[in-house]
Amino acid sequence: MTERLTLALDAMGGDHAPAMVVRGAEIARTRYPQVDFIFFGRESEISPLLDRMKKLKAVSRIVHTDEAVSSDDRPSVALRNRRSSSMRMALDSVKEGAAKATISAGNTGALMAMAKFVLKTLPGVDRPAIASFFPTLRGETVMLDLGANVQCDARNLVQFTVMGNAFARSVLGIKEPTYGLLNVGSEELKGHEILHEARQELSGLNLPGRFHGFVEGDDITKGTVDVVVTDGFTGNVALKTAEGTAKLYTEFLRGTFRSSLLASIGYLLARPAMRKLLKRVDPRRYNGAVFLGLNGITVKSHGGTDALGFAHAIGVAVDLARNGCLETMGRDFKAVDRSTPDEPAQAAAV
Amino acid sequence: MTERLTLALDAMGGDHAPAMVVRGAEIARTRYPQVDFIFFGRESEISPLLDRMKKLKAVSRIVHTDEAVSSDDRPSVALRNRRSSSMRMALDSVKEGAAKATISAGNTGALMAMAKFVLKTLPGVDRPAIASFFPTLRGETVMLDLGANVQCDARNLVQFTVMGNAFARSVLGIKEPTYGLLNVGSEELKGHEILHEARQELSGLNLPGRFHGFVEGDDITKGTVDVVVTDGFTGNVALKTAEGTAKLYTEFLRGTFRSSLLASIGYLLARPAMRKLLKRVDPRRYNGAVFLGLNGITVKSHGGTDALGFAHAIGVAVDLARNGCLETMGRDFKAVDRSTPDEPAQAAAV
Repeated sequence: MTERLTLALDAMGGDHAPAMVVRGAEIARTRYPQVDFIFFGRESEISPLLDRMKKLKAVSRIVHTDEAVSSDDRPSVALRNRRSSSMRMALDSVKEGAAKATISAGNTGALMAMAKFVLKTLPGVDRPAIASFFPTLRGETVMLDLGANVQCDARNLVQFTVMGNAFARSVLGIKEPTYGLLNVGSEELKGHEILHEARQELSGLNLPGRFHGFVEGDDITKGTVDVVVTDGFTGNVALKTAEGTAKLYTEFLRGTFRSSLLASIGYLLARPAMRKLLKRVDPRRYNGAVFLGLNGITVKSHGGTDALGFAHAIGVAVDLARNGCLETMGRDFKAVDRSTPDEPAQAAAV
Repeated sequence: MTERLTLALDAMGGDHAPAMVVRGAEIARTRYPQVDFIFFGRESEISPLLDRMKKLKAVSRIVHTDEAVSSDDRPSVALRNRRSSSMRMALDSVKEGAAKATISAGNTGALMAMAKFVLKTLPGVDRPAIASFFPTLRGETVMLDLGANVQCDARNLVQFTVMGNAFARSVLGIKEPTYGLLNVGSEELKGHEILHEARQELSGLNLPGRFHGFVEGDDITKGTVDVVVTDGFTGNVALKTAEGTAKLYTEFLRGTFRSSLLASIGYLLARPAMRKLLKRVDPRRYNGAVFLGLNGITVKSHGGTDALGFAHAIGVAVDLARNGCLETMGRDFKAVDRSTPDEPAQAAAV
């Protein structure tokens, strides 16, 4: 029998909180019967919602707080002034061991700042990164950083690679993941110096799997590698460009089926298959970005998501916890540390 | 009656050259009857192809050369050692006034290096940029730079905006284009300092249309602005990510229609409409990236394209020439120059 798992939910984060959070937990409950939930937020709002879901109520408890992080709060302000917020208390509960992971659809910057402060980074990690899955022709690819670090040096990129590699192994179950650095492709465009430094460092590291070197934007959806590593600026633009393109295509497709009577009939016949397609490209299926490199599991849901999307984010947290992603990552960073040639010298100098 | 227009074609550039180039010109001929072509390349290969297309032959001439730029040639090497190449001679013919534009499917870096050397940049332009159209929910958006400049400062981005704005007005015919700088969206992620500098400068410039400030990756396909400005690294990744996502979606769609008998029948009924859709997202329709900021028109076709794609690149060159894009851009840079407050002081100091 699987051990029970407790998750801390920021019930006040997201455009449709707390109703969306509670309904999301209800969907997740049916998928993960071994999970217990702690809802952090306004009891007067959460309690009536739970009253309508007896089975969920049976595996849940509420920790009341009136304070919530707003979407306009700057990270530094949230860190200083929102110490009793639902978001902060959820993170604190993970730190204290009462829960195994935090899931929040609230303010990304505030969540990252608080998570860093409360959970701290893993030994060997300078900066955490945001990671998520992308659908590809071959399955799924992990990409990071998706926006935590707008500017990165080679060392950051190398650390992101170690994190992404551990993530792919533990959560996707790929024993020997392939991994690459996102760059521009043409021969003459050699990309930033930083990328070349990172490439050189990664060639010397003995990470599990195989280093593919540089990959290009279209390699993400081709599934050329299991892990795509980039800085948070490029990653964020690539993620949103991909989302935008998928939406555009769906709109074009809708227009196509409305363009003639035959096409409309065709659509009716193909509808069950089309629904499968739309489900496959449904952004809610890819909801749940993971903050990697921290000493605790934090999953960020899209703020505008619905219960189904939030349930998916919960599922990502369950996967991370069940598969020991943090433990794998911790071991990898220790191994990398030992394999760095100049490390003993540095240690001796200190 | 429209004046006749002469175009210089690098007949040896691209994976399927010269046959693809000649067949592309034949397609373009039927669309643009006022165009004359000069084919630069191996006469022994081009001539037999033209012999099979009498009407094309009647508006074409061949300038023979045995030398060609290879796809492995580094830009600096191509610049020094490929002075008699088909690519270089095509550019020279534009410089000398024998042709109005160059179209090449050859090595991008070599083409850019040679075009800069032969044609020079427009007054006011430090570096040329690569621009192309993107399909959007509202029509088409111009994006630049797509890969010419991996690292850009604020001044570069401002100049790219002036170029993109002139391009949207002259080629897309938008009198008052909206334009924005590509950035990461979340409040807490403020993007590079360079972007903030560029934003400030653009707010002070009096370009036609309206400055929208920052836009995000998904704004590209939403069509939030008519012109999206970014550095060549981010632009290249965004372009390729969008292409990759569209391909993935098409593959998913194919799979959907093969997934059941009903879906297959549905596809048969919807086929004419589906063909329209696939045409709409066909990357060949968006083939033809423009080198903006040079004293002459240069259009780069995808190296792997076919005749239809190459014909589209020719069409882009025709549009640029017919709509006086260079002249508009030249006037705009003069106006910007005058409107820069510190310019008179600088001029006085010199």
